[in-house]
Amino acid sequence: MTAISLATLDTPALLIDLDIVGRNLERMQKKADKHSATLRPHIKTHKIPELALMQTRLGALGVTVAKISEAEIMAEAGIDDIFIANQVVTEEKINRLAALAKKVQLSVGMDSIAAARRVSDIFAAAGLEIDYLIEIDSGLNRCGVSPGRDAVEFYQAINALPSLRFKGIFTHAGQVYGAGSLSEVKKLSLLESRIMAHTALAFGEVGTSPDVVSVGSTPTMKVWQGHESVNEIRPGNYIFHDAIQISLGVATVEECALSVVATVISRPARERAVIDGGSKAFSSDRGAHRKEMASGFGIVLGNKATLERLSEEHGIMSLDPDEDLDVGDRVRIIPNHACAVVNLFDRAYGIRNDEVVEEFKIAARGKSQ
Amino acid sequence: MTAISLATLDTPALLIDLDIVGRNLERMQKKADKHSATLRPHIKTHKIPELALMQTRLGALGVTVAKISEAEIMAEAGIDDIFIANQVVTEEKINRLAALAKKVQLSVGMDSIAAARRVSDIFAAAGLEIDYLIEIDSGLNRCGVSPGRDAVEFYQAINALPSLRFKGIFTHAGQVYGAGSLSEVKKLSLLESRIMAHTALAFGEVGTSPDVVSVGSTPTMKVWQGHESVNEIRPGNYIFHDAIQISLGVATVEECALSVVATVISRPARERAVIDGGSKAFSSDRGAHRKEMASGFGIVLGNKATLERLSEEHGIMSLDPDEDLDVGDRVRIIPNHACAVVNLFDRAYGIRNDEVVEEFKIAARGKSQ
Repeated sequence: MTAISLATLDTPALLIDLDIVGRNLERMQKKADKHSATLRPHIKTHKIPELALMQTRLGALGVTVAKISEAEIMAEAGIDDIFIANQVVTEEKINRLAALAKKVQLSVGMDSIAAARRVSDIFAAAGLEIDYLIEIDSGLNRCGVSPGRDAVEFYQAINALPSLRFKGIFTHAGQVYGAGSLSEVKKLSLLESRIMAHTALAFGEVGTSPDVVSVGSTPTMKVWQGHESVNEIRPGNYIFHDAIQISLGVATVEECALSVVATVISRPARERAVIDGGSKAFSSDRGAHRKEMASGFGIVLGNKATLERLSEEHGIMSLDPDEDLDVGDRVRIIPNHACAVVNLFDRAYGIRNDEVVEEFKIAARGKSQ
Repeated sequence: MTAISLATLDTPALLIDLDIVGRNLERMQKKADKHSATLRPHIKTHKIPELALMQTRLGALGVTVAKISEAEIMAEAGIDDIFIANQVVTEEKINRLAALAKKVQLSVGMDSIAAARRVSDIFAAAGLEIDYLIEIDSGLNRCGVSPGRDAVEFYQAINALPSLRFKGIFTHAGQVYGAGSLSEVKKLSLLESRIMAHTALAFGEVGTSPDVVSVGSTPTMKVWQGHESVNEIRPGNYIFHDAIQISLGVATVEECALSVVATVISRPARERAVIDGGSKAFSSDRGAHRKEMASGFGIVLGNKATLERLSEEHGIMSLDPDEDLDVGDRVRIIPNHACAVVNLFDRAYGIRNDEVVEEFKIAARGKSQ
């Protein structure tokens, strides 16, 4: 498209600074290359096929998704190596998995005998095989089997099932979002890698070894310095960053590519202004697995105000009584949680130097099945 | 459609119990009729044209929306009387307002001279007029002018502008969602009506009177017993109710029409199960204008568990170690905030007696402009 002025976009609108995206992607790819690890970014942050293709063009081997519906969208766009880093258990979804496995290189997480049996049954009946990675709980207490011997025992319990090919082990140390400081992030990152290295070694005792040992979240990967055994990393948020990453010390404002532009619709009092974006534009997310963000629902650029409360269509900002923000003025805000915010919009606008240069359809928005 | 079993829907899926919807709609319509008030329900809760038409068929005069994009969807579906209970200030949106005003009976909120001038300019240039209602801040501290004399002075400041027709005054006492008890809800409901009656009287001193005096939220309307001067009510949530309404004492579980059905994807520990719906299915909403919900992110029907933590695609439930919930089992959950949850889905399924009888497109989902 021809570049147009940002001022011509009606609000609220979702903006992606493509220069910042480029730098964020290159930095993480370099880190992966330096430590001889495969980069397999999680697309849940951007949900946009064009950006996934940008990641694979820069060197990512494939992508990570959370749902079969996301995998279908990415496959349709030409991504040919997809890992569903989640448990797929319903018959309908396993059937879709089988259909997709005919078209692309597909792998899936496992953490229960029940799910393994279902996947095995359906794939065997279709005459297909699928690669699986065992999910390891490295402290998030979400899905996954325990590290070490427990993981090996789980492998032994399911590996004789037909149509399942053991590919490796993976974890997501999402508890890092509860860290209180960057040094705590570093400790958790090291722990994540060590737990996986230890578990990989345990497989040696039964005469096998995982081909892939996969870790990753944006905070733990930001401080990661490589680790023996770990050969795949799966950060997602690093493409955009957000106010939560800033609060962890993982990113600066200048490294945040995603923002929402909104318009002041009311200035009912000197210390209060209301914008036309609320929880439907910023989400109510104040950080999962952690205490609430102290800074409200996003970072108002230029420090003009604090986005203190959200209704669905109203953002209530508190501000200095002398702040010159009038009805019709615009503000740009870095949201708390980029992934949740992208999921609320149908479209995003790519910008460079505050000019709109591209319009993206958020093709994998709302894909929760 | 032919009725199908609920078990055939893949998860997570959004369910609307149409029998409960019918009872909720009839009850509120009867209350409006009894107190000689017009019912103008806010469609932000359901976002579904078919349900808006159900409301008007039962007696609602028209609907309330928050955004011009929502108004366009409702007009297209055949709703011919629409109030945008919000401030519309951008040029693009006012142009859309003018286009829509040619097709349906349209009215809009006002609380600033700046916005009034813009609307007046564009409507006058198009040779059109528009009804406006002055927004009164009855304690929410969001948009709106102060009650009483301030409202009258604002009216005097804008009423000479061409193309604007004064229709009335409106308020939304959303601070009721911070109430600690039903008796506090009752006090706020009475206060809301009294503030509006007092303001309506103040207009008499300058020789005019508002035709419409409009109040409403589901909690304040639940306990409302009519009030002199108040002649329009605008509840929205009452069509579905949700866990927040239950926590306020405003609804019972049996009056909640909206639920999410999800599948257990992992049972990594006796006291923990993980379902395939997270913040993309339940939202991170724990109640606006209030303390956090003590009960987690929704009410798990059958009291099987507590939905304690959400990632985007995972719901982490804590449960009794003896609870018989295995991988593949399903749970139904009443979400905290129905309006926010509906906004996350593209489709909802109408059910009666646990059979799926209708599929709805959530046509006004994501309409935040």
